[in-house]
Amino acid sequence: MYIETIDSPADLKAMSLDELEALAQEIRQALISRAKTQDEHLSANLGVVEATIALHYVFDSPRDTLVFDVSHQTYAHKMLTGRKEAFLDPAHYDDVSAFASPAESVHDPFIVGHTSTSVSLAAGIAHARDLAQGTGRVVAFIGDGSLSGGEAFEGLDLAAELGGNLVIVVNDNEMSIAPNHGGLYQNLAELRKTQGASANNYFKSLGLDYRYVEEGNSLAPLIEAFNQVKDATHPVVVHIHTTKGLGLEAAEKDPERYHHVRGLTASGEPHAQAVSWSDLTVSHLTELMEHDPQVVTVCAATPTGLGFTQDKREAIPAGQFVDVGIAEQTAVTFCAGLAQRGAKPVLCIYSTFLPRAADQLIQELCVNSLPAVILVDKGSVYGSGPVSHLGLQDMALLGNLPNMLYLAPANPQEYVSMMDWAVDYTQGPVAIKIPGGEPYQGDVSSKVVPSAQVALVGVGTFFSVAKEAAQALQAQGIQASLINPQVISDVSPQLAETLKAHKVIVTLEDGMIAGGYGAKVACALAATPTRVLVRAFESTYTDRMDPQDRISQARLTAAQIAADALEALHS
Amino acid sequence: MYIETIDSPADLKAMSLDELEALAQEIRQALISRAKTQDEHLSANLGVVEATIALHYVFDSPRDTLVFDVSHQTYAHKMLTGRKEAFLDPAHYDDVSAFASPAESVHDPFIVGHTSTSVSLAAGIAHARDLAQGTGRVVAFIGDGSLSGGEAFEGLDLAAELGGNLVIVVNDNEMSIAPNHGGLYQNLAELRKTQGASANNYFKSLGLDYRYVEEGNSLAPLIEAFNQVKDATHPVVVHIHTTKGLGLEAAEKDPERYHHVRGLTASGEPHAQAVSWSDLTVSHLTELMEHDPQVVTVCAATPTGLGFTQDKREAIPAGQFVDVGIAEQTAVTFCAGLAQRGAKPVLCIYSTFLPRAADQLIQELCVNSLPAVILVDKGSVYGSGPVSHLGLQDMALLGNLPNMLYLAPANPQEYVSMMDWAVDYTQGPVAIKIPGGEPYQGDVSSKVVPSAQVALVGVGTFFSVAKEAAQALQAQGIQASLINPQVISDVSPQLAETLKAHKVIVTLEDGMIAGGYGAKVACALAATPTRVLVRAFESTYTDRMDPQDRISQARLTAAQIAADALEALHS
Repeated sequence: MYIETIDSPADLKAMSLDELEALAQEIRQALISRAKTQDEHLSANLGVVEATIALHYVFDSPRDTLVFDVSHQTYAHKMLTGRKEAFLDPAHYDDVSAFASPAESVHDPFIVGHTSTSVSLAAGIAHARDLAQGTGRVVAFIGDGSLSGGEAFEGLDLAAELGGNLVIVVNDNEMSIAPNHGGLYQNLAELRKTQGASANNYFKSLGLDYRYVEEGNSLAPLIEAFNQVKDATHPVVVHIHTTKGLGLEAAEKDPERYHHVRGLTASGEPHAQAVSWSDLTVSHLTELMEHDPQVVTVCAATPTGLGFTQDKREAIPAGQFVDVGIAEQTAVTFCAGLAQRGAKPVLCIYSTFLPRAADQLIQELCVNSLPAVILVDKGSVYGSGPVSHLGLQDMALLGNLPNMLYLAPANPQEYVSMMDWAVDYTQGPVAIKIPGGEPYQGDVSSKVVPSAQVALVGVGTFFSVAKEAAQALQAQGIQASLINPQVISDVSPQLAETLKAHKVIVTLEDGMIAGGYGAKVACALAATPTRVLVRAFESTYTDRMDPQDRISQARLTAAQIAADALEALHS
Repeated sequence: MYIETIDSPADLKAMSLDELEALAQEIRQALISRAKTQDEHLSANLGVVEATIALHYVFDSPRDTLVFDVSHQTYAHKMLTGRKEAFLDPAHYDDVSAFASPAESVHDPFIVGHTSTSVSLAAGIAHARDLAQGTGRVVAFIGDGSLSGGEAFEGLDLAAELGGNLVIVVNDNEMSIAPNHGGLYQNLAELRKTQGASANNYFKSLGLDYRYVEEGNSLAPLIEAFNQVKDATHPVVVHIHTTKGLGLEAAEKDPERYHHVRGLTASGEPHAQAVSWSDLTVSHLTELMEHDPQVVTVCAATPTGLGFTQDKREAIPAGQFVDVGIAEQTAVTFCAGLAQRGAKPVLCIYSTFLPRAADQLIQELCVNSLPAVILVDKGSVYGSGPVSHLGLQDMALLGNLPNMLYLAPANPQEYVSMMDWAVDYTQGPVAIKIPGGEPYQGDVSSKVVPSAQVALVGVGTFFSVAKEAAQALQAQGIQASLINPQVISDVSPQLAETLKAHKVIVTLEDGMIAGGYGAKVACALAATPTRVLVRAFESTYTDRMDPQDRISQARLTAAQIAADALEALHS
């Protein structure tokens, strides 16, 4: 196979077009094979095989710099830059992460995982090059879906002003993760229809040079276009039309379903996700929307990951499910507008994407005290895989905003009650931290034991661990109070009073220590003799770490909690 | 005067065009008179007098909803909506805030102070209206400068898709606070030049209907245009060309200088700002740039407020000062690109705008450990005026990010040393919290007193207060250790060890309690018998509060600190 002979992009240069085409098919087959057992972004990678080969054929990485937006579509790039074993040999499948990684290769300039940043990153590299009177071409590779993020617009706008060599490849596969949303996509459709000739052209309106390649999955026209623009002394957009999922018929037909697979069944279907918390969100929210036409669910381009698959979305009454596209800022601000007019917006968002709308959460919702509900998904050590997608900082963000009420349910019943309550609450924004891991089905009420010396405060996911630790202590003859705080944006004077009566407090939470809930408890009791052990995750970034390892490193198992409480009690 | 007869927009409806024109001149004169003594956004308000009158003449607020972007240009709107006394009678000047305020009037739907949100807010209002099958037109009013913010693009993109009645007035005065930056502005210039006829049209490329009004300071064409579009059943952009600063010759000539004045001199010049901290930033950074061509200062549209007035910018070597426009996300991401290529970016940004780039701070700088320097300006109780511009949350944001080193200098010498050190640091991002208030000129070194029972930890602005409190304690025979922590993103084990030797710790900081530095100290010492009094500002939003009042409410005066330390010591 040709792919076995490729150790670096230099090995492509001597290959003929026929050989490159054969190579593309080998890469495509490797991607499909690997997806049978691996957690993989499949559709997007299948669509960019030819474009990636053409880029590496024409440009000269790492002397030239390639910046891939989101970088979930870098698998072919990885195969061509010394990491092919991770795609050919099952024993090496886990050698690479799902995103770009400078630790893996000099061909990856950045760790990237969130969208819409590539043009701004590339503009920075190009400007530093020009300041130092250096050389090296710069390429940003961005999907049509990522264009709906405001930062992509900002980057294009800036690049046009700064000038200098910068090639911006717009990979138009007519899809975001789910279908695209926004007026811009009519213009992209018009550009495709007119082979780039339409006078109405978003990119040209921003002052950028532009060319169109209809055959975005054919090597010859791609190579020709890249060769024509590679040494331009000003930014150029190369708009290429590709087919998401190309080479796997089912993925071509339903690219959303094959966007991110977690292995395929024998018949080639994506494995069903274990989505019990999401199932609950979708079913209960749909019920609320059916009963109250003022309830509107808002999301930013990740409906499927949130559980709102296409069939679920179609079952929702018209106008009550709004996907704003990859535009988290607008998702929050739009909710503020809805709330001001009396509608009941419910924003569903991954924990890792909350900071993308931090200012809007502060200004539009908190300063204005507008009643939007925010359901924070994947904010847990469980499922927090790649370093770019950790969901461990939502308590530090939402929990420290004045006027934001942040709630943490500890079992499904409590989650549903909190949703019901929050949707009808009118005094300000309410966020709900959806727990991680397997839903705990037991009783989650607090039990204050009179004259107990230890209190265990278990937040959300970790309430059941606190309960187990209390049982372990009881087995050793130590009575402990057990607290489910429910509200995690504040420690009420009543709760502080209750806790103060104990000698030792242990707090357990599903997030990083810095700025978290335990720090609030420590702060509330700082001037008292009560000792507080804050058990949360160290404030560091980890990549694809096993949740159980991270839990035991943080001393968050029931046995560790019981042992540490005992030690503190006796010290 | 006509203005004296206007109690609500209804009073405009019966007026003739001549009367409305006279009214415009009265409003303009009132604005100029008021600016002689008041803190006021002058240029922008002078430019929109006619547009505001025309909007209120054609539309029917509050049945129709007007959302002004940033809302610093709402003075004429306030005068026409029942708040004229605050502009006509010096005794009432302080009755109104500088921004929109629902507490002041039903004609203000939101508190707004940050840019680029108006279209998304208006889209939310319009969608809620349509869901409820309600009535009422919706208008977003946005300046050309605000269009460079990514969220404005997101809002336009969303509005085009949602449809429904929504009028988007683009107030093009050819200026942001400072000159505009970005490729988009060539398109606006082309649209002005062609009277809106250019085929290349940013707004149309997003699928929006469009019309152009050249005479944006003439009532008749404005009224005509608004009448034509007011009942459109789809979103329409009305691009109006206005003159910033109109009616005050000096402001027309130099609108940047008159953008925000703090009173005018007898000869009509803006009073010089007391800008000692900014002076230091500008002079030292300029020196660093002159000595090292790799140092690049980056800002997002607020150069003047940061001290980089036009003359100062012109003195900087080419390419080393980049104003990205109102685009904080891109400002941070661009810095990451610069740093990856070995340049030394220094981002100057107001504390209140940091959350606008929270995700980029996390992903691009912290996860990637890229060495950018961030100078955090106006992050202090001093100068934190309107509720939308409080600078009291930067410690909760930057101080809790893994890999972000956050430093707090306590006097000018320390600030300069930290800048020098940070610019050459290569291991990751470093932020520096510029203190507020009058620069303290005394010695700021820590003094650990062996066997002292009290330690006072004074952060940045409040180090001098801690020192004064230590002196007050000494006068009462109590020795106290005095700590300048310098690093505020972490409490080192050594510092924790030092602090633990005391019975009582008091922390003083210039920010809100939640997620702040004192909470970190409390957390670090939570499992020890040492008591910690955290002195910081309550986590609430306040509007135009006197700094001294807020300081004494927070028990942050030297006398209060000394008294509270004594009480804790003896309890």
